[in-house]
Amino acid sequence: MKALVLRADWDPRPDYQVSDWERDSGKAVTGSSVWRRPRLQVEEAGTPVPAPHQVLVQVKACGICGSDVHFYETDRDGYMLYPGLTRFPSTVGHEFSGVVVQKGADVTDLAVGDLVTAEEMIWCGHCGPCRNGYPNQCVNLEEIGFTVDGAAAEYIAIGAKYCWKINAIGERLGDEQRTLEIGALTEPASVAYNGMFEAAGGFRPGQYVAVFGAGPIGLAAIGLARAAGAGKVIAFETSAPRRDLALKVGADSAHDPTQLQASEVLLEASAGDGFDFFVEAAGAPQHTVPEMEAALAIGAKVVQIGRAAIRVPMYLERLQVRKAKVYGAQGHSGYGNFPNVIRLTASGRLDLYPIITGRFPLADGVRAIEQASKRTGGKILLTT
Amino acid sequence: MKALVLRADWDPRPDYQVSDWERDSGKAVTGSSVWRRPRLQVEEAGTPVPAPHQVLVQVKACGICGSDVHFYETDRDGYMLYPGLTRFPSTVGHEFSGVVVQKGADVTDLAVGDLVTAEEMIWCGHCGPCRNGYPNQCVNLEEIGFTVDGAAAEYIAIGAKYCWKINAIGERLGDEQRTLEIGALTEPASVAYNGMFEAAGGFRPGQYVAVFGAGPIGLAAIGLARAAGAGKVIAFETSAPRRDLALKVGADSAHDPTQLQASEVLLEASAGDGFDFFVEAAGAPQHTVPEMEAALAIGAKVVQIGRAAIRVPMYLERLQVRKAKVYGAQGHSGYGNFPNVIRLTASGRLDLYPIITGRFPLADGVRAIEQASKRTGGKILLTT
Amino acid sequence: MKALVLRADWDPRPDYQVSDWERDSGKAVTGSSVWRRPRLQVEEAGTPVPAPHQVLVQVKACGICGSDVHFYETDRDGYMLYPGLTRFPSTVGHEFSGVVVQKGADVTDLAVGDLVTAEEMIWCGHCGPCRNGYPNQCVNLEEIGFTVDGAAAEYIAIGAKYCWKINAIGERLGDEQRTLEIGALTEPASVAYNGMFEAAGGFRPGQYVAVFGAGPIGLAAIGLARAAGAGKVIAFETSAPRRDLALKVGADSAHDPTQLQASEVLLEASAGDGFDFFVEAAGAPQHTVPEMEAALAIGAKVVQIGRAAIRVPMYLERLQVRKAKVYGAQGHSGYGNFPNVIRLTASGRLDLYPIITGRFPLADGVRAIEQASKRTGGKILLTT
Amino acid sequence: MKALVLRADWDPRPDYQVSDWERDSGKAVTGSSVWRRPRLQVEEAGTPVPAPHQVLVQVKACGICGSDVHFYETDRDGYMLYPGLTRFPSTVGHEFSGVVVQKGADVTDLAVGDLVTAEEMIWCGHCGPCRNGYPNQCVNLEEIGFTVDGAAAEYIAIGAKYCWKINAIGERLGDEQRTLEIGALTEPASVAYNGMFEAAGGFRPGQYVAVFGAGPIGLAAIGLARAAGAGKVIAFETSAPRRDLALKVGADSAHDPTQLQASEVLLEASAGDGFDFFVEAAGAPQHTVPEMEAALAIGAKVVQIGRAAIRVPMYLERLQVRKAKVYGAQGHSGYGNFPNVIRLTASGRLDLYPIITGRFPLADGVRAIEQASKRTGGKILLTT
Repeated sequence: MKALVLRADWDPRPDYQVSDWERDSGKAVTGSSVWRRPRLQVEEAGTPVPAPHQVLVQVKACGICGSDVHFYETDRDGYMLYPGLTRFPSTVGHEFSGVVVQKGADVTDLAVGDLVTAEEMIWCGHCGPCRNGYPNQCVNLEEIGFTVDGAAAEYIAIGAKYCWKINAIGERLGDEQRTLEIGALTEPASVAYNGMFEAAGGFRPGQYVAVFGAGPIGLAAIGLARAAGAGKVIAFETSAPRRDLALKVGADSAHDPTQLQASEVLLEASAGDGFDFFVEAAGAPQHTVPEMEAALAIGAKVVQIGRAAIRVPMYLERLQVRKAKVYGAQGHSGYGNFPNVIRLTASGRLDLYPIITGRFPLADGVRAIEQASKRTGGKILLTT
Repeated sequence: MKALVLRADWDPRPDYQVSDWERDSGKAVTGSSVWRRPRLQVEEAGTPVPAPHQVLVQVKACGICGSDVHFYETDRDGYMLYPGLTRFPSTVGHEFSGVVVQKGADVTDLAVGDLVTAEEMIWCGHCGPCRNGYPNQCVNLEEIGFTVDGAAAEYIAIGAKYCWKINAIGERLGDEQRTLEIGALTEPASVAYNGMFEAAGGFRPGQYVAVFGAGPIGLAAIGLARAAGAGKVIAFETSAPRRDLALKVGADSAHDPTQLQASEVLLEASAGDGFDFFVEAAGAPQHTVPEMEAALAIGAKVVQIGRAAIRVPMYLERLQVRKAKVYGAQGHSGYGNFPNVIRLTASGRLDLYPIITGRFPLADGVRAIEQASKRTGGKILLTT
Repeated sequence: MKALVLRADWDPRPDYQVSDWERDSGKAVTGSSVWRRPRLQVEEAGTPVPAPHQVLVQVKACGICGSDVHFYETDRDGYMLYPGLTRFPSTVGHEFSGVVVQKGADVTDLAVGDLVTAEEMIWCGHCGPCRNGYPNQCVNLEEIGFTVDGAAAEYIAIGAKYCWKINAIGERLGDEQRTLEIGALTEPASVAYNGMFEAAGGFRPGQYVAVFGAGPIGLAAIGLARAAGAGKVIAFETSAPRRDLALKVGADSAHDPTQLQASEVLLEASAGDGFDFFVEAAGAPQHTVPEMEAALAIGAKVVQIGRAAIRVPMYLERLQVRKAKVYGAQGHSGYGNFPNVIRLTASGRLDLYPIITGRFPLADGVRAIEQASKRTGGKILLTT
Repeated sequence: MKALVLRADWDPRPDYQVSDWERDSGKAVTGSSVWRRPRLQVEEAGTPVPAPHQVLVQVKACGICGSDVHFYETDRDGYMLYPGLTRFPSTVGHEFSGVVVQKGADVTDLAVGDLVTAEEMIWCGHCGPCRNGYPNQCVNLEEIGFTVDGAAAEYIAIGAKYCWKINAIGERLGDEQRTLEIGALTEPASVAYNGMFEAAGGFRPGQYVAVFGAGPIGLAAIGLARAAGAGKVIAFETSAPRRDLALKVGADSAHDPTQLQASEVLLEASAGDGFDFFVEAAGAPQHTVPEMEAALAIGAKVVQIGRAAIRVPMYLERLQVRKAKVYGAQGHSGYGNFPNVIRLTASGRLDLYPIITGRFPLADGVRAIEQASKRTGGKILLTT
């Protein structure tokens, strides 16, 4: 089969301490300090054989994620930009949908022919965090497309317990291709859902929601805020095409935060009361969080979903005066996140189809990532 | 001014123990055991003069509530049916909107000309429950239209702190009459909102919601469930016209529970998983709760909003097996309920306008209550 | 090795529908309708060999549970009383502690020599409820001592992920035998903890807690209520020796509910305000819940932990007037329940040692169960 | 009567913009920018006459608060240090207890002879935040001892709704003087309680709690953490005498954070898992919060109660990796805070008596504040 494979050289920076675990496992904890000269290409690879607890999925759509772009991009020394846990060579891709074509002996919940999407986080299920209800904090985490082969390929073998059926979306749409494309958005939408509704506990219908950043996660957050009954949804995003997408998925207005004071927009839109729920999906909290602080309604919540290795000067006194709360979130697994996103999508209350702005065949996978690296549109899919 | 006044005779049933407090205050705790021969009529009454903390509101729309109907209806002994706290004679009516025409000296948050609706519960603000955050459990409660003069009149004087501006709805609609009619639905919608989102803590977007009973409160619950992102909303209601209204405000389907097994409908609609959130707005828990019990999803919530002086044989073992919860709710005050309902309405996410199925001038108030007593349509308004 | 084994005849009652699944799996869903002529005896059995994900535990203490007693007791037709999922023959026993003496190849979190206790629920980790965070609702559940061999034996092999280290208790006590005996109480204490703090969300420190039933689960609930800062803890229990135990583990008072009106006791103890948190651990909700209803504080919570196949006539109107809530709970797995109980025990804040009222050697296992069947004392342990 | 009165000169700093509201009301929003040359002295003042909704309380004990010290201390330009809302001259003091000696005509819940303590925040009850359940965010706030006459006097007149009976403490202690002294600690304990259990939602029994700062609020937090079942309570405090007090009210250990790395202490005490609940009561988040970040357990909560007009460089990524939360809290009113603290105290589960380390007669009030300004002991009381 064909697969979009990333190869890179294990060449730790001189000042990086490679741990024994890293050496033994071949995994770099801080990928950007270890992997040099990354090369992406579509290769011929062996079709995986599902283990007894796995299914073999024929991939139909696979989204390009920001992390995929960071695999491809390098700094001046030739190290890849992605800073997280990685083991190469690996097939990339983790936002996907497809059709179950084979199943292992122990799989009972899925049938050949089922349309599925899947989690990206291969949580172990037996470590302390997994047992206590924190799969997104699994200490034995593997990640498809990062440490094990991903879905930018014709087939992927994956544990059945990470898969979720999207047949119900198809029943409503009556269009399998569209179902599979929308289905491939479940993973990023679940990241937003997990942050907003699980980690931060959601908002009350009618409350006002501000979303900073309208990349795919932010766009999903906008769609979710609208679907969940926000009285107003205001988006901030520097890219004009993304602001257009924000409006398409449900923002009442979308603004360029470099051209105005976001907090003023929010205070004006709320007659001075402030906004109730803030989603940080820009990965730039040093810029966005101070604006949020200035526009906190009493009882407001802030959820940090975007990633940024940076310290943010926060004025905790503001949280006190407003009885406000800040929540950190990562991941998408557990808590009914995937099935709830799928139900929202199947009902039509959430429709993220407009955020798909590019489609490439798998054979053009490198070109797709190049396109994504421009960071001005929505989601780019590899489709087959 | 004109007012729709209820007069009745203080004639306690022989077996009813009138307490000293009832005798001193003139209030009957169990109205249906004390008030006989209720007479409703539109009378000439003095226009009220607002106290320093009050505003005078020119009423523009006032809904007829089920309790108003129970004032009018009597049993075979001539006692009125309404079983709650009451003191007569009193102007009835408590679901209203209007225009502020005068304000007391201490009022700072409202201006003459503001469009407002108001709470019905005149919570004292200083008893234990009020201080601890339970205004709907106020021990010194007065209720407009029940123990103090209500809004089925040309004017009402009411404490400013019970009023909520609906100007924002008008800004969106650009139609003052429609704004005021919708605004008069805020009180019953807030009863549903308080039960669903405050008492029961709401549901996660995408979850499935069943509403039993599609009178005005149930219809509001349906609209709210839809606005808040329910993956499915299924309604059960015996009246065919009300089932039509249920569909209009957002139900995916509406069924006559006397013609089928509600639990089977719900299990089928959820592929056997059960529903996640149940609203009892029928006031018939002896019939509805067993159906809910049979269709509980894991983690399901049941909220009892309808009133019924009856014991329900509950199988608590079912709650255990499903990790389910039951919540009791009454009232509408506090917790941002009114402002959130107003914001939802102003945003258009919640549109209960279709549930208004009758309009009568104040002078025809008695006829309006007769019409409401048929219990087959939506909300009937007195408009001026 | 020696093991306390239950054997019984598969002899379904004439009116019981045996399902295909039951026939294939050998498991009876409703044990009391299938298993006849139960015989308990200490037998010689093969020492189990741990699978790669399992450890072999040398059992040091194993509590007798009410379900064990129901295995032993029969109705007039000779059917055993326990109504739940069962497969025999099986070694009984599921409240235990011991020492890890061997570990499978895949076990990384435990070491030989560790003192451990374990969950009784062998949740699968891959069904829908497990994935969504409901291990106690696992649809593929096995239960040690019910469907797979239990811990009333010299050794048990069990998945490492169900084990929890109790070394920290030993560090504090400096007495291994006492540590292991207390450790064997972790399972029933976790049932109470799961109901009170996970399912029902706990209470605020200072609030008043009533516990109905002072068997081992109820006694754990009393100890937990006291440890968690209840302003008052009042227990109701018909057995005088158990009332004494209730006082020993932290109840402020303990009453015989057949000799007085429980609700009156609670109203008097709260100056009429009612109690805030109610634990039903008597398994007699038809008697206890009406008393709770009559003594609900505003905002009160009721959690049903005891099991009873009975309908309870509930007055939901009371829940509404008091803004009260009812929670169903079963099981003990997940949510940090076990580790939190162990930490409470290790800190000395929770000390259930006094509830151990009998110790028998494994060889006298049948006698231990006979003793437990008197239902007047606390926990009886098999020790080795 | 005698009263400890603060007088100061209205002399705004040249760069401070005095608003119209400040000029009209005589209140400075930022006291430290307006009030110069503060003079404290015990004066003869008229005994207040209670309004109809007020009671007259004969003060028996009144604590010196950190803010009282900041009234007394000045910067080099002679401006007082306290930065908050103030209007002078005013009798200071707001942590008090006493006996009701007279009541206004509208007061029904209190009787002459009742022992009471009271809130410091005179929330209006009719502004938006008050109506929505946020009394600590009241926009019309008056504060006793800050903007209206306080309790460092022989008598104070105060609204009955701000008073809470402490008779139950007396019933347990059987010692009126001790009851009144403990009762005067209710206000600071309620500040800690409000932050920990209302704003931050508390912790699960058995979880580990770290308290930074062991001034009176921090000491109350330690006592509350212990009473609420923390598995461990570790305190950090620079003053040695205060560390001793920390141990007395329930800390398992108390450390000088300038002599060691707090995060290391916490990681070691939790076998690397981190702590679950952090209370910032030091008012030095720039130092304490980074230590907390380094020792967050998965799911950890941080609550900021101490005040500091400073930006804290926060690494939000840490919150994400740990699914952690940060809560801001101020005030003590509402939510059952006062009654719950009183119940905890009456039960003996919370005993803050040891933190009282000084007692002065009212006539020596200035000396008491001088003593408190050393910031090395516990709570200093003015007693009568």
